[in-house]
Amino acid sequence: MDRRNIPVTPETLGLLQEIDVPTLSGTLTQAMGYRNNYMMGVKPLAIQLSQRMVGRARTLRFIPLREDLVAAQYELSTSRPHRDALEEIKPGEVLVIDAGGCLEAAVIGDMFTRRVHARGGSGIVIDGVLRDLSAIRTVGLPVFAKGMHGSGIPRALMSVGRDQPIRCGDIPVIPGDIIVGDTDGVIVIPPHIAEEVAKICQEHRAEEEWARIKLAEGASIHDVYPPSGAFREEFEAWLSSHGKGRMK
Amino acid sequence: MDRRNIPVTPETLGLLQEIDVPTLSGTLTQAMGYRNNYMMGVKPLAIQLSQRMVGRARTLRFIPLREDLVAAQYELSTSRPHRDALEEIKPGEVLVIDAGGCLEAAVIGDMFTRRVHARGGSGIVIDGVLRDLSAIRTVGLPVFAKGMHGSGIPRALMSVGRDQPIRCGDIPVIPGDIIVGDTDGVIVIPPHIAEEVAKICQEHRAEEEWARIKLAEGASIHDVYPPSGAFREEFEAWLSSHGKGRMK
Amino acid sequence: MDRRNIPVTPETLGLLQEIDVPTLSGTLTQAMGYRNNYMMGVKPLAIQLSQRMVGRARTLRFIPLREDLVAAQYELSTSRPHRDALEEIKPGEVLVIDAGGCLEAAVIGDMFTRRVHARGGSGIVIDGVLRDLSAIRTVGLPVFAKGMHGSGIPRALMSVGRDQPIRCGDIPVIPGDIIVGDTDGVIVIPPHIAEEVAKICQEHRAEEEWARIKLAEGASIHDVYPPSGAFREEFEAWLSSHGKGRMK
Amino acid sequence: MDRRNIPVTPETLGLLQEIDVPTLSGTLTQAMGYRNNYMMGVKPLAIQLSQRMVGRARTLRFIPLREDLVAAQYELSTSRPHRDALEEIKPGEVLVIDAGGCLEAAVIGDMFTRRVHARGGSGIVIDGVLRDLSAIRTVGLPVFAKGMHGSGIPRALMSVGRDQPIRCGDIPVIPGDIIVGDTDGVIVIPPHIAEEVAKICQEHRAEEEWARIKLAEGASIHDVYPPSGAFREEFEAWLSSHGKGRMK
Amino acid sequence: MDRRNIPVTPETLGLLQEIDVPTLSGTLTQAMGYRNNYMMGVKPLAIQLSQRMVGRARTLRFIPLREDLVAAQYELSTSRPHRDALEEIKPGEVLVIDAGGCLEAAVIGDMFTRRVHARGGSGIVIDGVLRDLSAIRTVGLPVFAKGMHGSGIPRALMSVGRDQPIRCGDIPVIPGDIIVGDTDGVIVIPPHIAEEVAKICQEHRAEEEWARIKLAEGASIHDVYPPSGAFREEFEAWLSSHGKGRMK
Amino acid sequence: MDRRNIPVTPETLGLLQEIDVPTLSGTLTQAMGYRNNYMMGVKPLAIQLSQRMVGRARTLRFIPLREDLVAAQYELSTSRPHRDALEEIKPGEVLVIDAGGCLEAAVIGDMFTRRVHARGGSGIVIDGVLRDLSAIRTVGLPVFAKGMHGSGIPRALMSVGRDQPIRCGDIPVIPGDIIVGDTDGVIVIPPHIAEEVAKICQEHRAEEEWARIKLAEGASIHDVYPPSGAFREEFEAWLSSHGKGRMK
Repeated sequence: MDRRNIPVTPETLGLLQEIDVPTLSGTLTQAMGYRNNYMMGVKPLAIQLSQRMVGRARTLRFIPLREDLVAAQYELSTSRPHRDALEEIKPGEVLVIDAGGCLEAAVIGDMFTRRVHARGGSGIVIDGVLRDLSAIRTVGLPVFAKGMHGSGIPRALMSVGRDQPIRCGDIPVIPGDIIVGDTDGVIVIPPHIAEEVAKICQEHRAEEEWARIKLAEGASIHDVYPPSGAFREEFEAWLSSHGKGRMK
Repeated sequence: MDRRNIPVTPETLGLLQEIDVPTLSGTLTQAMGYRNNYMMGVKPLAIQLSQRMVGRARTLRFIPLREDLVAAQYELSTSRPHRDALEEIKPGEVLVIDAGGCLEAAVIGDMFTRRVHARGGSGIVIDGVLRDLSAIRTVGLPVFAKGMHGSGIPRALMSVGRDQPIRCGDIPVIPGDIIVGDTDGVIVIPPHIAEEVAKICQEHRAEEEWARIKLAEGASIHDVYPPSGAFREEFEAWLSSHGKGRMK
Repeated sequence: MDRRNIPVTPETLGLLQEIDVPTLSGTLTQAMGYRNNYMMGVKPLAIQLSQRMVGRARTLRFIPLREDLVAAQYELSTSRPHRDALEEIKPGEVLVIDAGGCLEAAVIGDMFTRRVHARGGSGIVIDGVLRDLSAIRTVGLPVFAKGMHGSGIPRALMSVGRDQPIRCGDIPVIPGDIIVGDTDGVIVIPPHIAEEVAKICQEHRAEEEWARIKLAEGASIHDVYPPSGAFREEFEAWLSSHGKGRMK
Repeated sequence: MDRRNIPVTPETLGLLQEIDVPTLSGTLTQAMGYRNNYMMGVKPLAIQLSQRMVGRARTLRFIPLREDLVAAQYELSTSRPHRDALEEIKPGEVLVIDAGGCLEAAVIGDMFTRRVHARGGSGIVIDGVLRDLSAIRTVGLPVFAKGMHGSGIPRALMSVGRDQPIRCGDIPVIPGDIIVGDTDGVIVIPPHIAEEVAKICQEHRAEEEWARIKLAEGASIHDVYPPSGAFREEFEAWLSSHGKGRMK
Repeated sequence: MDRRNIPVTPETLGLLQEIDVPTLSGTLTQAMGYRNNYMMGVKPLAIQLSQRMVGRARTLRFIPLREDLVAAQYELSTSRPHRDALEEIKPGEVLVIDAGGCLEAAVIGDMFTRRVHARGGSGIVIDGVLRDLSAIRTVGLPVFAKGMHGSGIPRALMSVGRDQPIRCGDIPVIPGDIIVGDTDGVIVIPPHIAEEVAKICQEHRAEEEWARIKLAEGASIHDVYPPSGAFREEFEAWLSSHGKGRMK
Repeated sequence: MDRRNIPVTPETLGLLQEIDVPTLSGTLTQAMGYRNNYMMGVKPLAIQLSQRMVGRARTLRFIPLREDLVAAQYELSTSRPHRDALEEIKPGEVLVIDAGGCLEAAVIGDMFTRRVHARGGSGIVIDGVLRDLSAIRTVGLPVFAKGMHGSGIPRALMSVGRDQPIRCGDIPVIPGDIIVGDTDGVIVIPPHIAEEVAKICQEHRAEEEWARIKLAEGASIHDVYPPSGAFREEFEAWLSSHGKGRMK
């Protein structure tokens, strides 16, 4: 299972930059039938209110440590998946880490964050915890995690694989998936449906824009969200008068 | 069990606007013998530091979905408790939602929040999660919940009842209860004791105001909180000299 | 087990004031072999971004209440460990409270916080919850806890001991231990190794300072964190040229 | 939402008596599209290895207690849903109780179990805990719960409703649903699909009976579960030769 | 807080041997007002169906380990509370252990269980886990715990105190308390009320004995549990005719 | 990371058949320094009291499902790791499954268990749940899991890898590791230390055998576990007189 060879156009990635996470998540769940799209418990620990993270997933997997194996990882440099993963990040990629939800050792800190940033990565998402949060917040890279711990990887974990399908926030992440994150959380979009998802979301946003106006005027939720009966016509008229013709 | 027919005077509601949640909670627990008054795990996700939510409870209840029943709720408009509840909110009411603590689907989003606000509701409290938090924070309505998810109700839940006694944050909420919330959390006051509670709290606040002065002067907690021995007299004197005669 | 008689010099305490919690935690775990040094789940609820709490531990222990015993604690003043603990705090001490992680009653509120502050205490750390968070944030004392509840101690707990070894955030705290807290969490340092820990951290900070420069220049994490091969020499040169000779 | 008026024939109920819970659950999930059919965390605490519970659901709902309301429930006999529910159980019904998963007070004990048994009830299922387990095991009625506690309802709970849709074991239960339980757990069948479910299960059981024979002979799981290629023909032949023609 | 000096007569201890745990727990909660009497999550892992454990509490407390302190405990024999506690157990005492609910290291195994048994102890209760369960079950001593782990104390814990008030199963245990355990769990009785509790329970058992007869005859729970109206008289008559006069 | 090429002699495997899990776990933790050797929360659901499972690990990994990928797994037979894993089990191997602790779908049932048994596998260990427990118990193969669910894999999961390092019961499992299970739980032994571990355990068992005799005679735990002072000599004498010379 690898989705890195499925192309996603810059136009689609550009559209995704403009859509908030809940709109994408609702569309994936209800319109597309992909229920497992929103990461649970993975919080926006380092991100600006106006910032949005969009990128293709690179994955990394940790399991609890075994003493001799973790010692070998630190003595020999031949196989250290967690360090190799950093050094292979390409511009626009998001590093997604499955640490099994472990709260007992941080898998990312200030230094690793800076290296992902320097390589042009778009962000880091952790099913586990980080350290150096205060310092990470000064880097500018969006980072999502379940919380923080003071000590690093070898307190409890060891890395065992890269570029594999993983679990993160109780949902699947396949290498090459599109990851979108903002202050409302993180979602995962299978790349082959990204364009369709973006277009449905655009339409839905127009519907919400109109509904906000109507709700402010005192309209009932029954009538305007979604638009029903006569309100459906009013919405369609508003759509065309505002140059927002249906896209689907 | 319904407490909506028990009147609470505007004076009492006004008093409650001035008392912080911990003072109310402590009074309910220790002075009145109502231990289950503070909601656990329900966080102040959308509220200003100076804002206080006071209102009578309207309730709504969700359970995990059954596929055919939730489909019927979305196809037919005859019985959709979660939407009907919104459209019956009256000015000054707080919508309290029992979603069984479910973290897997949001029961409130931007649109529903705007409708409660437009109808004059005082706030929303959720034993579950919400979506669109960034947008909700711009509405101005106080909203409390256990966290957030990206997708809406039909990912995991369906509404099954309104205006029933419910569980929220591990305590009971009966329709008509008084709900008070601020940045320190949410509490529930049975309406028939609201006036008494407000008056005890007023007195307690005077005691705390005086104790803060004494503690700043270096007094021992044994002496001044609560005032004991000679300090009791000093406190009584301070009370009358500041026009804060005992109220009970 | 009591570590209060182990002296720690003002110089060491001063060094600790300048080192962030993750650096201390990593050093304790990896360089010193003390894995249980970082408190899990104990959050920086009341602290400034630039503030650091450093002090010697005084401990207090709560267990679930028994009705007759808690009543006696409130009627008689002869033995109330939680109040006596407050009145014995000395300048520079941190009150560390084992409430068994209880979320159902707050063990610290506005008044108790003010008293610790007035006595010159350096902070409060709670394996449990607090109340009056909004008010506590105005006091200026660093306070760490697992969350908040509206009601006080006698809703669920009673104090049973002071100056005993306790559990807090899943790690041990022995009276006299050094407690350090900042926005990245709280750690515990056995006093007899404090000086060595501080010196290792100083060196590690220099290494990180240099690595940040190199990472900004595009260097690989393999080369500079930690410095290896030719980069080790470059780092040593940088160290001497910046007057940061090795300290260990 | 009430399913009590949907008839289920004695023949269908009889068929369900012969099908184990996992076979029913798998069919509901995969063949019928009802994912929420198996109760999680609700254990077979009192049932014989050969026993199977089949019946229509009567529901009862508890929430955390409020001191004055629970006192009224025990002083006045006008409204005590948990007792009234017992006295309305009809032969063949299963009492399903939503106690919100509460582990702090038992909602069923020896006496209540005996009364349900005496009225001809088929069993009791609790999203919460029971007491008197040793005694209950001598009654002969199947009882499922999350565990046990020593004290009864008024330690933590009060009953607030009967014959309402409820949550139990993280799935929905609607009054009139068919409840089936055995040592492998408890499932819920919407009554309008019960006959179809029973028939699919009968066929699936034949498939499993044949597959067990083939697996014992050393056949590959790829070939025989489900039967594929030439093995499909062999299975069909076996079916007819054993008088188990397809039923659907 | 120590209750070891409060005498309990052999007659009272004898009465307690005949009363099951749920009857004691219900009486403590409802008749005596002691809510925190039943240990939650502490399971009867090694006890016979007919066996009942009754004894006075000796307590032992563990916290997470610190590497140098636990090493000292194993090298020097001067202070090892967990071993000293075993060697001070007196006939009829129950060892109650607060391991903070830790599931990561067993605090009791086969050897320690044999030593408590050899010294005449009545049982062991653990807020944590044990090892060697298969072997422990052959000893004959009742043992209650939260589960099992394969490794012993120094994997995660160290002992720090004996004969102190502790938390076990979310309730308080004071040295000298009466501990009663059977297949329905473990409860704690403050010794100064033990005689009264035993007598109320005796009466309640008579009421239950009579109610069982009436329920088998088809009586309503409203009428016979507790006996009300005319049934109260019938019960009183039954009581005297069976030589079970009221005891209170 | 693969340990399948590290040979373990039949003699060592034979020795391991005679040693109980807690003895192995304690030796791994304390004598060998491998703390992560005992699986937490993985229960002996299907095993006889006298049975012991010993074998080399084959691993299988699941993550939460994605709708299109799981559909493809069921339609095409080209890549179905969970089925391929079954068909590659060799005599003496144990199938260890990482389902991320998921309680919402069973990954093993009656049929899969029979196939592992038919292929000569030694057992199945699941970090997740199973179905058909009643039927599985009749197969005779040891099976360990966290609990049970009624429905199978496609309710919540999909398989994504075989023969990879995995997490199971909060510890690491590397393909080729030795897995030992009995009624006291499951442990993992790195194969290169298996012989040494077995020998230390043999000696430890002699020590325990002797200690049991001494404890039955009333000896103190201080003297005999481990044997100290004069008792050390007595133990050594007992060892030689019983033909149990030291083995290390």
